[in-house]
Amino acid sequence: MEIITGGVTAAKGFKAVGICAGIKKGKKDMAMIASEAPCTVAGTFTTNIVKAAPVKWDREIVTNSESVQAVVVNSGVANACTGEEGYGYCKDTAQVAAELLGIQTDAVLVASTGVIGRQLPMDKITEGVKCMVPLLLPTIEAGSSAAEAIMTTDTVKKEIAVTVPIGGKTVTVGGMCKGAGMIHPNMCTMLSFVTTDACISKEMLQKALSAIVKDSYNMISVDGDTSTNDTALVLANGMAGNKMIDEEGEDYQNFYQALEYVSIYLAKQMAGDGEGATALFEVKVIGAESKEQAVILSKSIITSNLTKAAIFGHDANWGRILCAMGYSGAQFDPEKVDLFFESAAGRLQIIENGVALDYSEEEATKILSEKAVTAIADVKMGTYSATAWGCDLTYEYVKINADYRS
Amino acid sequence: MEIITGGVTAAKGFKAVGICAGIKKGKKDMAMIASEAPCTVAGTFTTNIVKAAPVKWDREIVTNSESVQAVVVNSGVANACTGEEGYGYCKDTAQVAAELLGIQTDAVLVASTGVIGRQLPMDKITEGVKCMVPLLLPTIEAGSSAAEAIMTTDTVKKEIAVTVPIGGKTVTVGGMCKGAGMIHPNMCTMLSFVTTDACISKEMLQKALSAIVKDSYNMISVDGDTSTNDTALVLANGMAGNKMIDEEGEDYQNFYQALEYVSIYLAKQMAGDGEGATALFEVKVIGAESKEQAVILSKSIITSNLTKAAIFGHDANWGRILCAMGYSGAQFDPEKVDLFFESAAGRLQIIENGVALDYSEEEATKILSEKAVTAIADVKMGTYSATAWGCDLTYEYVKINADYRS
Repeated sequence: MEIITGGVTAAKGFKAVGICAGIKKGKKDMAMIASEAPCTVAGTFTTNIVKAAPVKWDREIVTNSESVQAVVVNSGVANACTGEEGYGYCKDTAQVAAELLGIQTDAVLVASTGVIGRQLPMDKITEGVKCMVPLLLPTIEAGSSAAEAIMTTDTVKKEIAVTVPIGGKTVTVGGMCKGAGMIHPNMCTMLSFVTTDACISKEMLQKALSAIVKDSYNMISVDGDTSTNDTALVLANGMAGNKMIDEEGEDYQNFYQALEYVSIYLAKQMAGDGEGATALFEVKVIGAESKEQAVILSKSIITSNLTKAAIFGHDANWGRILCAMGYSGAQFDPEKVDLFFESAAGRLQIIENGVALDYSEEEATKILSEKAVTAIADVKMGTYSATAWGCDLTYEYVKINADYRS
Repeated sequence: MEIITGGVTAAKGFKAVGICAGIKKGKKDMAMIASEAPCTVAGTFTTNIVKAAPVKWDREIVTNSESVQAVVVNSGVANACTGEEGYGYCKDTAQVAAELLGIQTDAVLVASTGVIGRQLPMDKITEGVKCMVPLLLPTIEAGSSAAEAIMTTDTVKKEIAVTVPIGGKTVTVGGMCKGAGMIHPNMCTMLSFVTTDACISKEMLQKALSAIVKDSYNMISVDGDTSTNDTALVLANGMAGNKMIDEEGEDYQNFYQALEYVSIYLAKQMAGDGEGATALFEVKVIGAESKEQAVILSKSIITSNLTKAAIFGHDANWGRILCAMGYSGAQFDPEKVDLFFESAAGRLQIIENGVALDYSEEEATKILSEKAVTAIADVKMGTYSATAWGCDLTYEYVKINADYRS
């Protein structure tokens, strides 16, 4: 597997574009991805009972359509809690795009992110789609432009692409996502779009995505709030020319590895660029007696406000980590736990068998002052492990979210 | 029932004291409550697997001792994650107090709050106990002094007392507590101490407390972090002279009402004085099909960081409330939900059947700018309801918790 420059336009046959449609003042707010050839599609969506209209639209299409060929995304308005009217706007948007692209309406996926409860400004959306279709390009810059247009409170655009040899052909997998706030995905993330030129059956594509979300998007949290709009989509147009992957085996494994790499990279990007974050906070729980136990423990730590505030303060306040493990609901023996902090600045053991070692606070603070810090908790019960990603809790997070709508 | 001035010394026969023992610089950090007569005791404790040493000590005593007569509390150090050594210090503290008071060691409860992972400075604790015993007084001021000594990041001391007629006698119930951070009690709260001169059997006292914590302490959250030290204790010394309450009936109901009032008052005090809070945030879920559903929904809203930040910003960001209900795990129909905001400044309906009304943002902001604000969500499924209390998420919360140990 090789990491290459690019995002959703890296794979053969995919074009993209990002524009200012006037939904947000002076910022890019609409993006489109389109494929030359029909694509197999897989998707996972929010488990929040309150599902945004585009989630309902896409879920319907992912379940029932044979193939899709385009995705229209807007930021600024989430089209959530908008009733029948909001759902109708998804269809209207898809229809406009479909006519211009010469494809079926049910070959167009839509996604929205932004304020909950407002209706889409359909005049701007319609004009936006009309403006975007002729601007679609297969270039790296066009992909980046799309990644920029889906940002809300994100501070950087998030994209990645890799190539992997499959059955003598080079398959490319590229993606983009947006995160920042209301990020605590359950089954998938806020908005993530991955394109690939792999030739793979719908069943195997969904199988790969469903397995991978558990170790990538579902393992991150910015604020514990599971969004109404979480959507992860993978579009595969088959243009790499590899023999169709329709069963497990070496080809599937190679593809899986590439999709997993892209997904974990995008998930970590979202965690590290959480609203107001100054650091990516990685938590590894090792020595667990089951995968589930490791997942529960690691997610409890990354969602603890007190732990997140301590990370912001570069404070090795390990008691908060042990406390968060203790109320997680998972069973373990606190008096067996070892805890380490690790970053580019070094590695330090803080507690052994549940009790503090005589470590240097100065050294701990140095380790915790890096842009990416890791806590490793060994519960010494078995061989399972899990890694979760979050970020610190900062003044800026509060500022962003006290002011968001204004 | 009548509300009177006072706290833990309001009931007959209870003395208290709060002093500076030198654990925290220049602040009161030790308190003691003692009763002239042996007390029946009830307690509930944290469900965190990581239990502080004093929680283990007290649980043992509440379960096995016939009566207790004193409580020794320190702030500054939590005596959590301190192993066998920390547990031994609980016994040592109780022993010193017992000798000076002329009672059994297992009649002395202990409680600690503060930094996790440090051992108690036993020289200071021992000197503190020796200093406190001769200073114990039955005055209102002495009770207040104890309430002050158990504060950590609390900004105000929290106490309350009520009287209630029971079988022709006047029974007094008074209490104090501390809250502020790591507050998301499960089975009980950080530290809450209630004293009463009621004559009540151990069984009925525990029954009342266990029922009441579910609607009081267990319904508040400051930061979603369930502490290692949560402890709620009720001491009843029988000196009001009422006929012993040893079964359900009018006397039990009167006592229950008084204890419930005191517990809810203290719980709300903790929520409103959450670390960095500028407002008490009350959430009522009504029209639920079960009590459990109402509890899950209301607690999900008060723990949502995004909702809490919106309350800080006086922003009627109702989408975040609906979102938090949606990911709570409780089933309901989002398209049936009505939502209202209410405070001393008025009451306003924001959404009807899941969709926003054409309400005035200006009026909403006015309502949300009060010191205590309420959100009422009607899910229109039945007749059950629940009320939860939290607070807003502020810069100050982050500041306090990024700096706490230093």
